[in-house]
Amino acid sequence: MKTPRSPNSLAVIGTVAIDNIKTPFGVREKVFGGSAAYFSYAASFFTSVALVGVVGKDFPDEYRAVLKEHPIDLSHLQVVEGKTFSWKGFYEHDMNSAKTLETHLNVLTGFDPVLKFENKPPFIFLANIDPHLQAKVLDQLEKPRLKFVAMDTMNYWIDSQRDALLKVMARVDAMVLNDGEARQLTGEANLIKAARKIREWGPQYVIIKKGEHGVLILGDNLFFALPAYPLDGVFDPTGAGDSFAGGLMGYLASQGEVSFEAIKKAAAYGSMVASFAVEDFGLEKLRRIKRSDIEERLDLFRKLSVF
Amino acid sequence: MKTPRSPNSLAVIGTVAIDNIKTPFGVREKVFGGSAAYFSYAASFFTSVALVGVVGKDFPDEYRAVLKEHPIDLSHLQVVEGKTFSWKGFYEHDMNSAKTLETHLNVLTGFDPVLKFENKPPFIFLANIDPHLQAKVLDQLEKPRLKFVAMDTMNYWIDSQRDALLKVMARVDAMVLNDGEARQLTGEANLIKAARKIREWGPQYVIIKKGEHGVLILGDNLFFALPAYPLDGVFDPTGAGDSFAGGLMGYLASQGEVSFEAIKKAAAYGSMVASFAVEDFGLEKLRRIKRSDIEERLDLFRKLSVF
Repeated sequence: MKTPRSPNSLAVIGTVAIDNIKTPFGVREKVFGGSAAYFSYAASFFTSVALVGVVGKDFPDEYRAVLKEHPIDLSHLQVVEGKTFSWKGFYEHDMNSAKTLETHLNVLTGFDPVLKFENKPPFIFLANIDPHLQAKVLDQLEKPRLKFVAMDTMNYWIDSQRDALLKVMARVDAMVLNDGEARQLTGEANLIKAARKIREWGPQYVIIKKGEHGVLILGDNLFFALPAYPLDGVFDPTGAGDSFAGGLMGYLASQGEVSFEAIKKAAAYGSMVASFAVEDFGLEKLRRIKRSDIEERLDLFRKLSVF
Repeated sequence: MKTPRSPNSLAVIGTVAIDNIKTPFGVREKVFGGSAAYFSYAASFFTSVALVGVVGKDFPDEYRAVLKEHPIDLSHLQVVEGKTFSWKGFYEHDMNSAKTLETHLNVLTGFDPVLKFENKPPFIFLANIDPHLQAKVLDQLEKPRLKFVAMDTMNYWIDSQRDALLKVMARVDAMVLNDGEARQLTGEANLIKAARKIREWGPQYVIIKKGEHGVLILGDNLFFALPAYPLDGVFDPTGAGDSFAGGLMGYLASQGEVSFEAIKKAAAYGSMVASFAVEDFGLEKLRRIKRSDIEERLDLFRKLSVF
């Protein structure tokens, strides 16, 4: 395992997974995925990122090699006896929400992240994973002081670990979640009301991902609505939300400062990275693009959004 | 019936209705509505508009007085024996789609629009109504030459009058419809693909209304995505789409010229008018605002959308 020469500005905890995915465009087995994998690959277009996670002894070398294509620090990717976490799911015609067929936690059960950073990264993303694990990472990193902590979650944790989830939420600066999760978490159908309620629970910023309908951000008396980049070729939505968060946090960390203005720009970057991510299965499309492709699409998007 | 001194730049054919509406915020009976009523009230913030429609002898004087608050020409609003068209419906918690309980066509059955304009209006909107009636209006107005014709429709006509609908579509410049209707009409789940297909059938511009998610516009190799103005107080979505179309067409007609750039700006105006319309039942909120309120909200919206 290599340690990059420059300290990481950003760390993520989340899943590293082997997925089985069916979309209207095909079936793929053993797709490299997981929230931390998508996030770190997306973020590393902008900055170096440390991936905190766990895989089993079965984790293929070629997947590790994929992560090493980018400045991703794997010092905190534990390898333990057992099988890597895997998810099997499918998307129907509308591509809007994943249906889960199978979840095998495998090595995630009993995962105990132990962090040994020489320089603690100032930007942290707690990707979708058990909130107790999110808390353990925060416990080890939040002293003396972090610049910006954001988190994600999913319906499963909202249902089964609500209390633990709310405790983590109280400690973060930003909550990133999709529209369905925001409604489920708050019981509010109106997304503005849902975002306001989440802000009352702790996070200063609430960033709601709406898939093909874009992103809504609520801050302190500020809101921002960003449409999605219009795509006619969505092949696999898996990892879109994590890629969005990765682009957003990667850009923010590369700037080093946080403000509502910076978050708006970061969300636009995240949205562009996500728009590439869904154009092929797994990480395939992101592997074929460069930072300049992201900039080019953002320029076009900016032109299209001006009125 | 009064004839405005200056010729109308815009005409609309559609329904004038008495609605019974239930939303999570209350129940209202005998609400003044209908596609042409919402459209013309919204459009007349920007330009004079001629309303082509029919009502029964029961149509209340106070509803007529509402339309007369704005520069709306009622010379082509026929009054015939019988009862005014009425619709009864409700919205559930999510406010995203209306559920119809009752539709009483009443005087709409047998309605035969006969148009006698001294100066034919160059901008026409064929609001949601039987496509045969939309065609009758076009027959009388399209010669010698119109500047811009747009149309709307609904699931009912897509199901029951598809052929007649496609014939009208082939004659218009722009199709305005909501996301569900675009998917239903084309069989395409992806809205960009759906819009492309509709363009192949005739309309140069396809304007897809997505409610709380904003608007998507496809033109000749051009697209434009506009988020909705974020609202936490949606009381009654009835007429939102017609108010949007009214604002859009009213602004376009007031400018006199059509281009993709003009349509983008017009869509932003339409979106602001719609955002007011849903803040109270029926036309109530639109009756309480002025053009300056629309401009003010648009300024704020523009600031919020810049990144």
